[in-house]
Amino acid sequence: MEHLVSIRDITKDEIEKLINQALRIEKNPSEFVGRLKGKILATLFYEPSTRTRLSFESAMLRLGGNVLGFADAKISSVKKGESIADTIRMAASYSDIIVLRHFLEGSGRVATEFSDVPVISGGTGIQEHPSQALLDVYTIYKHFGRLSNLKVGLVGDLRYGRTIPSLLYTLAKFDNNVVYLFSPRELRVRMSVMNDIQNKLEVHIGEDLDKHIDKLDLIYVTRVQKERFPDEASYERVKDFYVIDKDTVSKAKDDFIILHPLPRVNEIAYEVDKTPYAKYFEQAKNGVWMRMALLLTLLEE
Amino acid sequence: MEHLVSIRDITKDEIEKLINQALRIEKNPSEFVGRLKGKILATLFYEPSTRTRLSFESAMLRLGGNVLGFADAKISSVKKGESIADTIRMAASYSDIIVLRHFLEGSGRVATEFSDVPVISGGTGIQEHPSQALLDVYTIYKHFGRLSNLKVGLVGDLRYGRTIPSLLYTLAKFDNNVVYLFSPRELRVRMSVMNDIQNKLEVHIGEDLDKHIDKLDLIYVTRVQKERFPDEASYERVKDFYVIDKDTVSKAKDDFIILHPLPRVNEIAYEVDKTPYAKYFEQAKNGVWMRMALLLTLLEE
Amino acid sequence: MEHLVSIRDITKDEIEKLINQALRIEKNPSEFVGRLKGKILATLFYEPSTRTRLSFESAMLRLGGNVLGFADAKISSVKKGESIADTIRMAASYSDIIVLRHFLEGSGRVATEFSDVPVISGGTGIQEHPSQALLDVYTIYKHFGRLSNLKVGLVGDLRYGRTIPSLLYTLAKFDNNVVYLFSPRELRVRMSVMNDIQNKLEVHIGEDLDKHIDKLDLIYVTRVQKERFPDEASYERVKDFYVIDKDTVSKAKDDFIILHPLPRVNEIAYEVDKTPYAKYFEQAKNGVWMRMALLLTLLEE
Repeated sequence: MEHLVSIRDITKDEIEKLINQALRIEKNPSEFVGRLKGKILATLFYEPSTRTRLSFESAMLRLGGNVLGFADAKISSVKKGESIADTIRMAASYSDIIVLRHFLEGSGRVATEFSDVPVISGGTGIQEHPSQALLDVYTIYKHFGRLSNLKVGLVGDLRYGRTIPSLLYTLAKFDNNVVYLFSPRELRVRMSVMNDIQNKLEVHIGEDLDKHIDKLDLIYVTRVQKERFPDEASYERVKDFYVIDKDTVSKAKDDFIILHPLPRVNEIAYEVDKTPYAKYFEQAKNGVWMRMALLLTLLEE
Repeated sequence: MEHLVSIRDITKDEIEKLINQALRIEKNPSEFVGRLKGKILATLFYEPSTRTRLSFESAMLRLGGNVLGFADAKISSVKKGESIADTIRMAASYSDIIVLRHFLEGSGRVATEFSDVPVISGGTGIQEHPSQALLDVYTIYKHFGRLSNLKVGLVGDLRYGRTIPSLLYTLAKFDNNVVYLFSPRELRVRMSVMNDIQNKLEVHIGEDLDKHIDKLDLIYVTRVQKERFPDEASYERVKDFYVIDKDTVSKAKDDFIILHPLPRVNEIAYEVDKTPYAKYFEQAKNGVWMRMALLLTLLEE
Repeated sequence: MEHLVSIRDITKDEIEKLINQALRIEKNPSEFVGRLKGKILATLFYEPSTRTRLSFESAMLRLGGNVLGFADAKISSVKKGESIADTIRMAASYSDIIVLRHFLEGSGRVATEFSDVPVISGGTGIQEHPSQALLDVYTIYKHFGRLSNLKVGLVGDLRYGRTIPSLLYTLAKFDNNVVYLFSPRELRVRMSVMNDIQNKLEVHIGEDLDKHIDKLDLIYVTRVQKERFPDEASYERVKDFYVIDKDTVSKAKDDFIILHPLPRVNEIAYEVDKTPYAKYFEQAKNGVWMRMALLLTLLEE
């Protein structure tokens, strides 16, 4: 593995290796202190992010490395009209590894062409968010001890968030997984993604989460992203389509869990946070272990 | 001490301990190098700040720790509608201690409820700025050798700045302190704060600083914050109400000092900077020693 | 050397020493790891920059030091009306060395007056960008083995960019250099700069690059900065005045090179990037070695 800009570029084996590495790190973090001493991570964020950026920074610092970059394209050379290629070439001169968040489709791929150092997508284009998918399956693996034979409900905006396609492509690498897609019509999974996964996953499409929740091992809930809608009215129509509360999960299996890439707005009621089903805060925390594993794998191999 | 989100939460004893620790650090900083190696400070600044943020960062770096965070809420998940509770929970996953600046009253308290790691208010709500009050009294202590039996003039905006209530609450913990409050009518200390301190401090209210300056040990001058006024005219009326110049201090005692939390605009004339009364730059510098003491106390005990 | 806020403040000897130090560092970077351990660099950027800021940060981190600061004046105390002098005094309290970028003429000089620690201009006023000029001549020296007897073409906006005057003043310190100035009329070198250099450099003014390119050792191309023009129309007239493509360089000497401070927009066609003439990416990379030399020189001597 030289770069990681799409979860589709890595194999089931490589995912399992990363999970095992993350497990080792989580079990004994002090053993990994200083492993990336002297190395520099460049975080190039052309779109706002807190969780992804800060957890990569935390991962790098915990490994003894350092961080530079920008969190806002407005304060960078982009404003002066610089191309991604030139910005990446610059960042590769100043650092040992790059995390890129960029709205443009293919920006991750372009970055790898112009960089001498490893590039990780921290969310690029409309469907790539590989480090998120990795921490998602890490969380699932820690709970269920497996990544196959799972019944997974995806809930909310399945169209505009990058985490959904990335997770679907990841689940499709493992055996006998079944996914239930719950969303308003206008927020369904894109056709191109559907075509890619349909032979590898058993897919059910529906709107009514309540009717199916008792069959599911987990649900993965996403925020309806206001910034993607052309007008307030379209957003208002769908924003409260799914609100997971205690009532929703009352019929769930005993070892059922709820994941969410966060940030959430109101799609999971606060009352759920204290139930044993709520795994989304642990999931966020897992991001540090998985990103440590990823940085180590790309920089030490 | 587990968190520090209000100066009212700590005792006179704890303040004295922090002052003694800061004195030790200032005397021999090299002894403290590397004491927080491997630790991460998260600076979450929802309002602009330079001095508070950078001096906390400097303190953490000088102790061998590292820093991550954001300096501008616009580039964070807040923009996506995330609650403080969720953002704090995230930051606590990625760091070992948090400094929070937030405009909302009670935000510091909320943060402590959702954080697994110590939280320090770096300015929260309308009256909490405990680390500022600590560096203020540290500066006073270094000059006078005591924090009681002081005659302190507070000058300027006593209503909207957070430093004034925090300092008043701190002075009220010590014995026989007298405060003189000099401000335009619309910028007087809030009633709730007055009620809290009136039994513990001898309070004089006035407008005429010149008449009283010869009695005072120190004045604490504050900027009239333009951003708090509903219109230009209201601001214009009061902005130059007090301008401390050489003439103002000509009747002061010999060991009189002037403090200011900074930044200043024009409320202290530049000609005063070179007088022996000017202690505000040293006060800013003291922020690093006191914040080192604070970080050490919260992380090592 | 105590500060570096203008290339005019340092001698030919000092420049040669910095070049030699940069060469040593580039040859054997691992020897310099940890040399500035415990030191803090403050980057105060009142104007957007990526390359200058990030390469200084990279340089400091590679030497084992740390970094704090701001990349955007809007999130700092400037917004509250603080003077440069006061901000600098603050930064000097929190750090061991300062890099300042500021639009105001003389801001670098003012900074040195109020700072207890070394100040480097990272681009100040309309003509000072000394660390850029140093990395420019470092790149030239590495290629030609000399900084005298050179025929240098300056191309594009010679009026508003800071790099042009800084480079001219630097070339003027060495012997027998000839410069050809290619620009639209409204973007010619300022009269004051012309007066300063005319006795020390042989200067030719022209518009037609093609006619002279075969005589030149190198060209230094600059971006026409849209943000400097009063209206779209004036910008449109000159923005494509020079576009360097393969055809342009077809008549150049064999060891001819092209430099550019970057970012570029369209003034050098992408097809040129792969020619042996293109030195601008290496030039950007050289920024780290030269800035390491600069930080070491100012902090260790």
